[in-house]
Amino acid sequence: MNAEIIAIGSELLTPHRSDTNSLFITEHLNRIGVDVVSKIVVGDERARLTDAITLAWKRSPIVIAIGGLGPTEDDLTRECVAAALGRTLHREESIVAGLEARFRFRGLRMPEINLRQAMVIDGAEIVKNAKGTAPGLWIEEGGKIMILLPGPPRELCPMFETECIPRLRKSLPPAAIRTRVLRMTGITESAADELSAPIYIQYTNPVTTILSTLGEIQLHLKSFGKDEAEALALLDELSPQLERVLHKYIFSTAGESLEVVVGRALGEREATVAVAESCTGGLLAQRITSVAGSSSYFWGGAVCYSNVAKSDLAGVSPDLVEEHGAVSAAVAQAMAEGVRTRAGTTFGASITGIAGPGGATAEKPVGLVFIALAQASGTQVLERRFPGDREIIRWQASQAALDMLRRALLRVRE
Amino acid sequence: MNAEIIAIGSELLTPHRSDTNSLFITEHLNRIGVDVVSKIVVGDERARLTDAITLAWKRSPIVIAIGGLGPTEDDLTRECVAAALGRTLHREESIVAGLEARFRFRGLRMPEINLRQAMVIDGAEIVKNAKGTAPGLWIEEGGKIMILLPGPPRELCPMFETECIPRLRKSLPPAAIRTRVLRMTGITESAADELSAPIYIQYTNPVTTILSTLGEIQLHLKSFGKDEAEALALLDELSPQLERVLHKYIFSTAGESLEVVVGRALGEREATVAVAESCTGGLLAQRITSVAGSSSYFWGGAVCYSNVAKSDLAGVSPDLVEEHGAVSAAVAQAMAEGVRTRAGTTFGASITGIAGPGGATAEKPVGLVFIALAQASGTQVLERRFPGDREIIRWQASQAALDMLRRALLRVRE
Repeated sequence: MNAEIIAIGSELLTPHRSDTNSLFITEHLNRIGVDVVSKIVVGDERARLTDAITLAWKRSPIVIAIGGLGPTEDDLTRECVAAALGRTLHREESIVAGLEARFRFRGLRMPEINLRQAMVIDGAEIVKNAKGTAPGLWIEEGGKIMILLPGPPRELCPMFETECIPRLRKSLPPAAIRTRVLRMTGITESAADELSAPIYIQYTNPVTTILSTLGEIQLHLKSFGKDEAEALALLDELSPQLERVLHKYIFSTAGESLEVVVGRALGEREATVAVAESCTGGLLAQRITSVAGSSSYFWGGAVCYSNVAKSDLAGVSPDLVEEHGAVSAAVAQAMAEGVRTRAGTTFGASITGIAGPGGATAEKPVGLVFIALAQASGTQVLERRFPGDREIIRWQASQAALDMLRRALLRVRE
Repeated sequence: MNAEIIAIGSELLTPHRSDTNSLFITEHLNRIGVDVVSKIVVGDERARLTDAITLAWKRSPIVIAIGGLGPTEDDLTRECVAAALGRTLHREESIVAGLEARFRFRGLRMPEINLRQAMVIDGAEIVKNAKGTAPGLWIEEGGKIMILLPGPPRELCPMFETECIPRLRKSLPPAAIRTRVLRMTGITESAADELSAPIYIQYTNPVTTILSTLGEIQLHLKSFGKDEAEALALLDELSPQLERVLHKYIFSTAGESLEVVVGRALGEREATVAVAESCTGGLLAQRITSVAGSSSYFWGGAVCYSNVAKSDLAGVSPDLVEEHGAVSAAVAQAMAEGVRTRAGTTFGASITGIAGPGGATAEKPVGLVFIALAQASGTQVLERRFPGDREIIRWQASQAALDMLRRALLRVRE
């Protein structure tokens, strides 16, 4: 079964923005055996948009149109789809009521133009949007399906995953594409490939691809089966062989982020953590607390950006900073131990380094980072040199600190 | 003048890869006054690819097709373009010689399949590729131009910039497109539209579009002129009128992020800041320190996730937390004042709230956040209710705190 995706919005035709929603949509369509055969980006322009919809509807049994459902004058998707399908629009009072309630909750008056979002194409069903004001629409005609969804990813993603996919699955013949991603850190792309290629090249189904993202290497396995059980069995044959050779580096095989994995391991062991960070400036704490429920294991953190803050918040002696420099193994160790003592937690984690572009010296280049982990049995300090710019260095430093915590919790042998 | 871009390759229809070449192409086309009106992604499939090229060629005066020029069986662009245009292909011996020389230089024998890359569409001119084996092709017919380029960015980018753009510029009437983005916060999309629409609807050039991203509203102005000066003058006529009605909300008109704007304002006034944050868990500090050079105005921060950390790091009295609750105006105020006193900075900023999904009560729902800013003249506390999930609430809270700091620094009247 084939689908086409139309991404709508003039901003997607500028040099500054690109459509990324279609990647999410594609992933979920693939899982139920639907292949995406074409993607189109078109601006907020009536004639071209209507043409694009008309053509896609003629060619493909499933058309997914994203964006242009906002309240403003340049949000034309509802009208253009109605025109392409030869239907009219009506105002849906239940949507009006929902919109008004939403604005009331925020203590705001609903602007008149938001009424545009209550317009529904005749014969279309409403796809609920829990996260925003624009509902989606679901249209069926002559065995074909068209779905209209709002553009913001945080609205579109849950709508597509929980409302649209189950319904599509029911309408389609059984076929399944399953994917599994082995997420790793602490290893390079080529090293991961050297270890895994001798195994995965023996298989054409699943297909294996290796991808490198910031501070992380991923092996993507994709299997094709006549149903989910068959597709899953194919994954379950290959995946454990790869996991065996890569096990120290793999932090998840089910999609969880490193911070989620670390949080779960802390929770299971009833362990707690506090952090002290310099060059990452709050990134490590922010990643730990991005996980709901992190208050049960995270005490808090000190963002010791200045040297005064290092002594004041993390109890690092100014003499130590004077002697070794703020970016040193000794200071990293003192920060981790200082914050752990202060907080009374199982672990104290710290990061100090030079994120650049300024601050480097001959002996201490941009990218030099010390990461420490203090616990009752002692303190471990890592020295790392990360390539890349400020953002990349900060991210990799936070990744290394989380991975150090993961390995300590799961007792991964070096 | 309008152009269409066709990105070719089945890998661009998977969940893992997206076309980014078109952003580069668009930027360079815009500079010479060419607008991209449509982008299409299509796989390595003969019928669909031929259709896509035929349609684009019918609709648009400039068509740029990227990818599918490699040596393998699934590289079909040359053949499909020839079919769409009703032309034949011939082998170009000068390309064969160049390919052979390239392989010889690397000490390799040229595989037979590379001869496919020496096939040229009749009447097409060759666009030289200094970085790879696939030459590009340039076709003109009836005043229209089609350009075929290889997919790898390091081959495509120099070819397009140095070979194609100068030639396009000569063929086209002189023209330029300029864009300006007014970035705002503290206002909803519909309110921004109500204030600005009466002004911008009087102009068809510049074209104005309004966009909503997390905690931010953007007005994109795009002008078309016969040269850069004219395009710029058109922006300079409309933009100040919009800036006048929206001025309290606009934090940048030149692309800078809110944290960069705040950092510059702090630096200019030789002011300093320290932060104390609870529900944002380090996000505010992380955003402030994402700016290079922030060490000159950022002291550090306390991530007071637990109540103990609130008193220990930010000096909030446990009695105050007991009496008002951790999420309260009183605690926000005490956090901001506590961290400011401790750090001896010009400003102390704080955030405490309920990011969810847990932690809510009848009086204190998920999304309730208090944001405080302490300075010598006193402390201001804002109460906000943000809709959305944990990540959205945290981002909006950090955005509101940064904007509070911006308004205080720039003395924006409420």
